[in-house]
Amino acid sequence: MKKHIVLLPGDGIGKEVINSAKDVLSAIAEEYNLTFSFETHEIGGAAIDLYGTPLPDTTLEACKQADAVLLGAVGGPKWDQNPSHLRPERGLLGIRKALDLYANLRPIKGFKNLLHSSPLKEEVVSGSDLLIVRELTGGLYFGTPSERRENGQIVVDTLYYSRKEIERIVDKAFQAARQRRGHLTSVDKANVLESSKLWREIVEEKKAQYPDVVVEHVLVDAAAMKLITNPSQFDVIVTENMFGDILSDEASVLTGSLGMLPSASLREDGVGLYEPVHGSAPDIAGKGVANPVAMILSAALMLRYSFQLDQEAKVIEDAVEAVLDSGFHTADLQVAGGRRVGTFEMTKLIVDYI
Amino acid sequence: MKKHIVLLPGDGIGKEVINSAKDVLSAIAEEYNLTFSFETHEIGGAAIDLYGTPLPDTTLEACKQADAVLLGAVGGPKWDQNPSHLRPERGLLGIRKALDLYANLRPIKGFKNLLHSSPLKEEVVSGSDLLIVRELTGGLYFGTPSERRENGQIVVDTLYYSRKEIERIVDKAFQAARQRRGHLTSVDKANVLESSKLWREIVEEKKAQYPDVVVEHVLVDAAAMKLITNPSQFDVIVTENMFGDILSDEASVLTGSLGMLPSASLREDGVGLYEPVHGSAPDIAGKGVANPVAMILSAALMLRYSFQLDQEAKVIEDAVEAVLDSGFHTADLQVAGGRRVGTFEMTKLIVDYI
Ligand SMILES: CC(C)[C@H](C(=O)O)[C@@H](O)C(=O)O
Ligand SMILES: CC(C)[C@H](C(=O)O)[C@@H](O)C(=O)O
Repeated sequence: MKKHIVLLPGDGIGKEVINSAKDVLSAIAEEYNLTFSFETHEIGGAAIDLYGTPLPDTTLEACKQADAVLLGAVGGPKWDQNPSHLRPERGLLGIRKALDLYANLRPIKGFKNLLHSSPLKEEVVSGSDLLIVRELTGGLYFGTPSERRENGQIVVDTLYYSRKEIERIVDKAFQAARQRRGHLTSVDKANVLESSKLWREIVEEKKAQYPDVVVEHVLVDAAAMKLITNPSQFDVIVTENMFGDILSDEASVLTGSLGMLPSASLREDGVGLYEPVHGSAPDIAGKGVANPVAMILSAALMLRYSFQLDQEAKVIEDAVEAVLDSGFHTADLQVAGGRRVGTFEMTKLIVDYI
Repeated sequence: MKKHIVLLPGDGIGKEVINSAKDVLSAIAEEYNLTFSFETHEIGGAAIDLYGTPLPDTTLEACKQADAVLLGAVGGPKWDQNPSHLRPERGLLGIRKALDLYANLRPIKGFKNLLHSSPLKEEVVSGSDLLIVRELTGGLYFGTPSERRENGQIVVDTLYYSRKEIERIVDKAFQAARQRRGHLTSVDKANVLESSKLWREIVEEKKAQYPDVVVEHVLVDAAAMKLITNPSQFDVIVTENMFGDILSDEASVLTGSLGMLPSASLREDGVGLYEPVHGSAPDIAGKGVANPVAMILSAALMLRYSFQLDQEAKVIEDAVEAVLDSGFHTADLQVAGGRRVGTFEMTKLIVDYI
C-alpha cells in the first residue's frame, strides 16, 4: 500500500509534534511493509508570515491531492491582533470547508495512570469512554449573512443547515455507535431552535435504519451538566458545529489527559485531516518538552479511518499505552514514581516499542 | 415599604417550593415591618391545561403590574410531545421577552458541607464563588428568520444583537464585578462569529468607564474547559444568551448543590423574575420532598435586586446557611451525620431561624 500524506506543522509546538507523528508512521511503514510519502506545507501563522495568508493556494492544492493530512496546531499571540482574514484559525476553518471535512470525531478515553490528574473524582470519571461526533462545516461557522448592519448598530450571524448536511453527520454517528457500544446521544436545543427541531426529526427518521442503536435526545444545557456529573453514561454523542465545539472541549478535560487526545475530520470518501485536540501552546514551543502523544494518536486515527489499517492503528495505540504504563511521561503530566522525558525521547520510546 | 409580588408556581415541584418562598417572605415582612401582597397565576404546562396556552394574557398582565415575579419551574413529560407553541418553556421565553428581562444573574457558590458531593475534587472546586451574567432576551433565542425553507430542505436560525442590547448587559456585568471582586471574564467566539467580534469591541470600549475592573476575554470553548479545571479563577462571567445557557448549566453542577442555586432575571428598572436554576423534577413532584432552598434563595435575590433590601436578603441567606450547618438537608443531598427533612420542615426551620 502506497499513501501520500501532507504534513502541516502550523505554529508553536505543532512544528515539534508533527515530527513525532512522521517518525512513528515511518516505523509502522517499515514494520508492515507500507509506503508513506510525505510533503510539508505551511498553514496558520507560519503561512501568514511567509505568504501573507493563513491558507496559501499551494497548501490547499497539496492537501487536495493527498490521501490524508496531518496538522500540528495553529495560532499564537503574534497574530492575535490581526484582522479576521489574517488570523491563523482562518487557515484551519478554510481547509475544513475546502476539503468538505464535515465529520469531526473526538474519542475521549482516560488512561489508567493519568486519571488521578482529572479535576473530577476518580469514581465519577472512571470508565468514561466516549466519542464526540461534531458537524464541522456548517451551522453558525459558515452561515451567511454574518455581518454588521446599520453602521454597526446591528449584528447577525446565521445558523444554517441543509437537510443533507444533517443527514450525513447523523449517519456517520449511527455507524460509529454501531461499531462501539450501540448507544447514541443526539444533542440539540430543540425547545428553542428551529434548526434543532429539524435535527431531532432527522435523527428520529434515521433510527429505523439502525435498529441496533439505542437513541436518546438531550438538550445542550443538560448535556453540559451530564458530561460532568456522569460522563461514563455516554457512548457516542452527535451534535452540530458550535455545540460540538463547546462540548468537545468541555469533555476533553474530564480525563486529565488533554495532551493525549487526537481528533479526525473526515470527508465522505474517507480523506481526512488529523490533529491533536490541544493547541499550539506558544509558552512551551521550541523547548522540546511538548507532549507528542495526541499527535501520534492522531496519526493512528489516520491509519484507521483514511487507510483502513485498523491493526496498525492499534499497534500505535498499544505502544503509547505501554510506554505510559512503564511510567514515562512528558512535563504536562504527573505520574507518581514516573520518569519525565522530552518530546524526542517520548517519541523514541514509542517507536522502539513498535 | 409595600410591594406586590406575582407568584407563578408553574409545574411539578414548582407548585410546592413556591409556598416555601411565600412563607419565608411573610416571616421577613413581619420581622422587618414590610408589606408584601401576593397574587398567584398559572404558567407553563399548568396554563396549557387550563387555558390552552403556556402564557395566558391574565398572567402576563398581572406580571406587568407587579413589583417582582417569583417563578417555580415549568415543564414535564405530559407536554413534551406538544407542538412548539404549546410547550411549557414557551411561557418562560415569552415572559422574559415581554417584560424585557435581559439580564440573567446566576450566582454559584459552594456550601461548605455540601462540597463533598461535587463531582469535582474538593481541592479543585473549593473557594469557587462566581456569578454568571447571561444576556436573556436576544441572540439565537429570538432572532429572525428562524424557519425552514425550500420544503424543509434548509433550516436557519438567526443570532441577532443590537449594539444597545450588548451594551446594557455588559454594563450590568461591569457593575456586578465592581461590587464583587473586580474581575470580569467576557466569553465569546470572536475567532468565528461576527456578533462575538462586536461583543468583544463593546467590552473593550466600556473598560474605560470601569477602570477598577480587570477584564479578560475567553473563547467559549476554552471557558467550558476552565470552568471545570479551575472554577475558582472566575469572579463575574458575562456572555450572550446561548453560551450563557450552556455555561451556566455547566457551572451549576460544579459545587454539588444544584438544588440550592437561585437566579434573577432583571429589567433595566429593577423589576425582575426570580426562579430556581433546577427544573420541575416531575419524578418527585407532589411528594413533599423537594428542596425549597433554591426557591427561597431566589426570593432573597428578589429582596436584594428588585427591592434594595440587601440586609433582609442577607438574613434569608444566613438562615439557609445556619440550617444547613446544623445538618438538616432534603433528600437530594447527602450530609454525613445530617438529618433528612421534607420541603415543609426545611422551610419551617428556615422561617424559625428568621
Ligand atoms: C480554532 C477554532 C476556530 C476551532 C473551532 O472552533 O472549530 C477550534 O476551537 C477547534 O475546535 O478545532
Ligand atoms: C427552558 C429553556 C428554554 C431555558 C433556556 O434555554 O433559557 C432554560 O434552559 C433556562 O436556562 O432557563
